[in-house]
Amino acid sequence: MTLHRTDITVRGFHLDLYGHVNNARYLEFLEEARWSMLDDRIDLADWQVRGLALTVVKISINYRRAASLGDKLEVRSALSEMRRKSATIQQRVFLKNTDTLVADADVTFVVVDVKSEKALPIEGDIAEALNVLRS
Amino acid sequence: MTLHRTDITVRGFHLDLYGHVNNARYLEFLEEARWSMLDDRIDLADWQVRGLALTVVKISINYRRAASLGDKLEVRSALSEMRRKSATIQQRVFLKNTDTLVADADVTFVVVDVKSEKALPIEGDIAEALNVLRS
Amino acid sequence: MTLHRTDITVRGFHLDLYGHVNNARYLEFLEEARWSMLDDRIDLADWQVRGLALTVVKISINYRRAASLGDKLEVRSALSEMRRKSATIQQRVFLKNTDTLVADADVTFVVVDVKSEKALPIEGDIAEALNVLRS
Amino acid sequence: MTLHRTDITVRGFHLDLYGHVNNARYLEFLEEARWSMLDDRIDLADWQVRGLALTVVKISINYRRAASLGDKLEVRSALSEMRRKSATIQQRVFLKNTDTLVADADVTFVVVDVKSEKALPIEGDIAEALNVLRS
Repeated sequence: MTLHRTDITVRGFHLDLYGHVNNARYLEFLEEARWSMLDDRIDLADWQVRGLALTVVKISINYRRAASLGDKLEVRSALSEMRRKSATIQQRVFLKNTDTLVADADVTFVVVDVKSEKALPIEGDIAEALNVLRS
Repeated sequence: MTLHRTDITVRGFHLDLYGHVNNARYLEFLEEARWSMLDDRIDLADWQVRGLALTVVKISINYRRAASLGDKLEVRSALSEMRRKSATIQQRVFLKNTDTLVADADVTFVVVDVKSEKALPIEGDIAEALNVLRS
Repeated sequence: MTLHRTDITVRGFHLDLYGHVNNARYLEFLEEARWSMLDDRIDLADWQVRGLALTVVKISINYRRAASLGDKLEVRSALSEMRRKSATIQQRVFLKNTDTLVADADVTFVVVDVKSEKALPIEGDIAEALNVLRS
Repeated sequence: MTLHRTDITVRGFHLDLYGHVNNARYLEFLEEARWSMLDDRIDLADWQVRGLALTVVKISINYRRAASLGDKLEVRSALSEMRRKSATIQQRVFLKNTDTLVADADVTFVVVDVKSEKALPIEGDIAEALNVLRS
């Protein structure tokens, strides 16, 4: 598969008093990009029926460069690692059409059975589905 | 009952690029104040058990004066009107310990039966419970 | 001019505990749509150079129908009224490609001179610029 | 100094569709707690006059346990490390009055000269001021 790309334009309500995108807001940008990627590549309706949910257990984000009003950002996302019980999506935020990195993050999640609230092993058709998120 | 008061300190992440609290953020301040009021005066656990929820159907808010970093705000809330199927809470945001009005809003809600998703008539013990929200 | 349209897909982080888009979040959807409209039709860079800003003074919003995970929304925006010192943009949120109204709002703003922090009369080239926001 | 503590009550608008506090929202809780700590212990007005700002460059957060409507949280914050050009604040979110850890984060920041937009060495009176943030 190719890398997944989501465009975001920086608006006034994304900014803090220094005129820069606020830290917490980046996590919403990343979440928007992950939902968009999952929407494109995974049958989420089927997962919902089966009572499966992705739950984020760890985020590690570096803020590299401030983004300002009107900046066009591109979030590039791909599954970077799969483990027995968790997986990691790498997400990088660039100024669109440039190599200027604004932020990058590793987002680690587990696949949870909503009823039992237990993390499931990542194997079989779950592993297969996640595999299409690789770049 | 007396007027309900909730304190909020303006933080950096509440501000927009002009250094003022953003429009949407005020709605969170108001919601925080309403939850705090309901928490203090209504048996929310009992309402949840009975499948009752408050659903906002209309908000009308005036932004009177910009609030800035470090400002101490006080949200004063009280039920101002009860109708057959809806009720209104008036909320005013002041600079704490002053008469300087920052914003004021009328928030109209219905009491919904979560199962049927229908608005219930505001009468009997529901009306009684809401009555304690008056100032 | 034609009505301005902005698409928004409802994501998990937009929802509250009832699985519906939260009240405050709609104001961000509306703000996103207004920025997008202004971006398309007004020379915002020129306004910034001249020290002009749009400041919202009043929002009146009706929540008509809950929006849920995955819903595709379309915000339709147009200037609906111009007065001597303020103007109003009407914004309606529909389920995309339907006549199902999710929310509608009147957003009233003034044009502020950032230096003096005074509202300017809406006349001359300011009125002209705003006129292109009519549907 | 003692550990700094900030209380937060989980409200409806903090939750996502699973009824749990959303990932991005935790970063606002942490930011609220950091501002509150800085407010208590550092002369922020003086820093602002001198054109100094704290800029977050990295956040690493573990989500340990879901928090739900009405939960009382306590954020415990302290400076954990000082380096030549950056420092780290450790923040742990507990269910109040318990040892149940909800989330924990390392937040790394630099001290920026707002005019030059350069990170300053952490030494002299800057290091002294930050030292009071230790537990």
